[in-house]
Amino acid sequence: MIQDFYKNSNKINGVEVSVTSCGLKKTGKDDLVLIKFSRKGKIFGCFTNSKTPGESIKWNKSIINNGIVSAILINSGNANVFNGIEGQKTQQNIITALSSELNIDSKEIYIASTGVIGETLDEKKIINSLPKLIASLSNDNDAWNKAANAIRTTDTFPKLSSRLINIEKSKIHISGIAKGSGMIEPNMATMLAFIFTNANFKNVSLKRKIQKLVDKTFNSITVDGDKSTSDMMLFVSVNDKKKCYVSIEKVNHFLENLKNVMQDLAIQIVKDGEGSKKLIQINVTKAKNDSDAKILAKSIANSPLFKTAMAGNDSNWGRIIMAIGKTNIDINPRKICLKFGNIKILENGEKNKKLNQKKLKEYLCKPEIQIFIDLGFGEGSSCVWTCDLTKEYISINADYRS
Amino acid sequence: MIQDFYKNSNKINGVEVSVTSCGLKKTGKDDLVLIKFSRKGKIFGCFTNSKTPGESIKWNKSIINNGIVSAILINSGNANVFNGIEGQKTQQNIITALSSELNIDSKEIYIASTGVIGETLDEKKIINSLPKLIASLSNDNDAWNKAANAIRTTDTFPKLSSRLINIEKSKIHISGIAKGSGMIEPNMATMLAFIFTNANFKNVSLKRKIQKLVDKTFNSITVDGDKSTSDMMLFVSVNDKKKCYVSIEKVNHFLENLKNVMQDLAIQIVKDGEGSKKLIQINVTKAKNDSDAKILAKSIANSPLFKTAMAGNDSNWGRIIMAIGKTNIDINPRKICLKFGNIKILENGEKNKKLNQKKLKEYLCKPEIQIFIDLGFGEGSSCVWTCDLTKEYISINADYRS
Repeated sequence: MIQDFYKNSNKINGVEVSVTSCGLKKTGKDDLVLIKFSRKGKIFGCFTNSKTPGESIKWNKSIINNGIVSAILINSGNANVFNGIEGQKTQQNIITALSSELNIDSKEIYIASTGVIGETLDEKKIINSLPKLIASLSNDNDAWNKAANAIRTTDTFPKLSSRLINIEKSKIHISGIAKGSGMIEPNMATMLAFIFTNANFKNVSLKRKIQKLVDKTFNSITVDGDKSTSDMMLFVSVNDKKKCYVSIEKVNHFLENLKNVMQDLAIQIVKDGEGSKKLIQINVTKAKNDSDAKILAKSIANSPLFKTAMAGNDSNWGRIIMAIGKTNIDINPRKICLKFGNIKILENGEKNKKLNQKKLKEYLCKPEIQIFIDLGFGEGSSCVWTCDLTKEYISINADYRS
Repeated sequence: MIQDFYKNSNKINGVEVSVTSCGLKKTGKDDLVLIKFSRKGKIFGCFTNSKTPGESIKWNKSIINNGIVSAILINSGNANVFNGIEGQKTQQNIITALSSELNIDSKEIYIASTGVIGETLDEKKIINSLPKLIASLSNDNDAWNKAANAIRTTDTFPKLSSRLINIEKSKIHISGIAKGSGMIEPNMATMLAFIFTNANFKNVSLKRKIQKLVDKTFNSITVDGDKSTSDMMLFVSVNDKKKCYVSIEKVNHFLENLKNVMQDLAIQIVKDGEGSKKLIQINVTKAKNDSDAKILAKSIANSPLFKTAMAGNDSNWGRIIMAIGKTNIDINPRKICLKFGNIKILENGEKNKKLNQKKLKEYLCKPEIQIFIDLGFGEGSSCVWTCDLTKEYISINADYRS
């Protein structure tokens, strides 16, 4: 449904995309994407806070304060991380080649790389493909679908989301693509996600507002608690000929829709979590503050014991209590209320003696599970998405490189 | 081999043990253990720092400062955690009954409970079994083996370790039993571990010294990063008729052997990690300090992606780099040296271009793997043990209660 909606509305004037297979993926599948802006766009980025970041992250961070973008080059099949000085040179040569081919400033070129860490990236494969990529740039739906496909690694489906809204007689588009399936616990940012809009903003500082949205969406998901070296979210306000301005009065309406797109993409990533059969939403309320709520929600969302219980449709809620207890957050066990969907398990720390086990089992067999934890403490809350931990996660990761 | 050694040396005068099946385990297997000291012993304990601790932890913590023990009662099959006021009363009734049966102060009775969280503990099953338990107390090897068996939950083998050393003409015994397989990332203490010695100490304060040993052994293992609500380590210096004093000059010799016993038991727990096929030792050296080294080693040891790679005999060392990068510890990627066993992977952040992939693959197929990470920074170091993450972990935990 999400993708159908997308198909009707993803055309943003001023953005073109093209896709090819340059040979980084051994399967011969598409692995290189170029996104080109007709006019310089404004860009905002969130990046992984990994202490061993990939070359793409280091480069993008060095130019993001200029806030201007002309092109984004994305490759899958090789993350170009921890390749030493060689990896840095390789990337520089690719940027120089693209800068010269497109006749644009290299500081307006953003790079994203995803795949195996520590394998030498063959720059020739990418550089030799640039002329073909540039020649085939287009802005049709098919090209965007192909792009969402080409940035996949272990993802089982492409991730796209968009919204079309009317603001002050302008048709505003928000369109995004993303990838991610394993090594997912974004902290500063997310897996790869690229979001574009034709909206322009006057006297509105979006930076903090978008960071907040990222915290509530991409930074609120986890598949395995592992943090990628290459995560990023890039948001581009396209500089179309026909200016579509969003005034300060209407900016909240825009942000609400932007949040929807981000949440859509974030949830698609969790749904496609490696081996995942179930989407689990964990809602922690009445914590001392939002930060405490998020730490507790993440502790549950990352507990292998909780996640395997979910895989087995097992209501073993003791593991939720264990995961709450394992953080350093102060709680009062006598105040905890716990529900699976609308089925009450604990009220003020005491078990619901009228619990209908059959109804509970039925609920746990569903593909989407909601868990509500009320700490009876303060005003803080957090909502985090995770997935179950299944044997397929092991299969996928025990021989990822084989 | 460890167990053979144990069989020859576990008799500590003044400690008796008995075992029975009181009906807490549905299988009818032994689930209740009584350890009785002929004379009051001196006790030191480490307990989980979970914020949702079990009743046993709460009780033991309330009496540990007295430092005196007359009996330890251990049950498996039910952890008596999060059972509200009822759980507390249940435990109090059990303690009162044992205190009256043995005619000892209730504040000299220690309790350990392990099993499912949040299920009502039937006190009658335990209380009714006390007379039989008391009548069958003995100090033979068979009784200790049975005790190590009875405290198991998902453990596949009983865990025992002991040392017999000569100190100043005295024969000093150190004997321990332990249990643990899942929900293993002790933080203040460990899974259940009980260690006894006939050594007595004059003018020697062991408390901090033992805490340090616990940090280097039980607190340096992880199976799944989950922290139990019921973890504890109890160390008892038995008050035997024949006094075996260890002087301050010889205490280091004693502590060295105590560390061996603790490490033996800790490693047995990891080897029996749920679904584990491989023991992995992670050595981090030249970190800024020991604490940084341990955080990094644990980050690797708990990474699902690293652990699944090990399950697949895959040298995907990028996942080690990822796990190093995901902490907040400052590192210099250009200084990292990495080895699997004695096979060099990285030197000063650069790949070993002469790496023999065949030799590496052979090494990774072994049941015990050693990983060495030199950060080239400072004087801090840490050694942590973990296991691989296999499909069996999922099988065991997806239907633990079914």
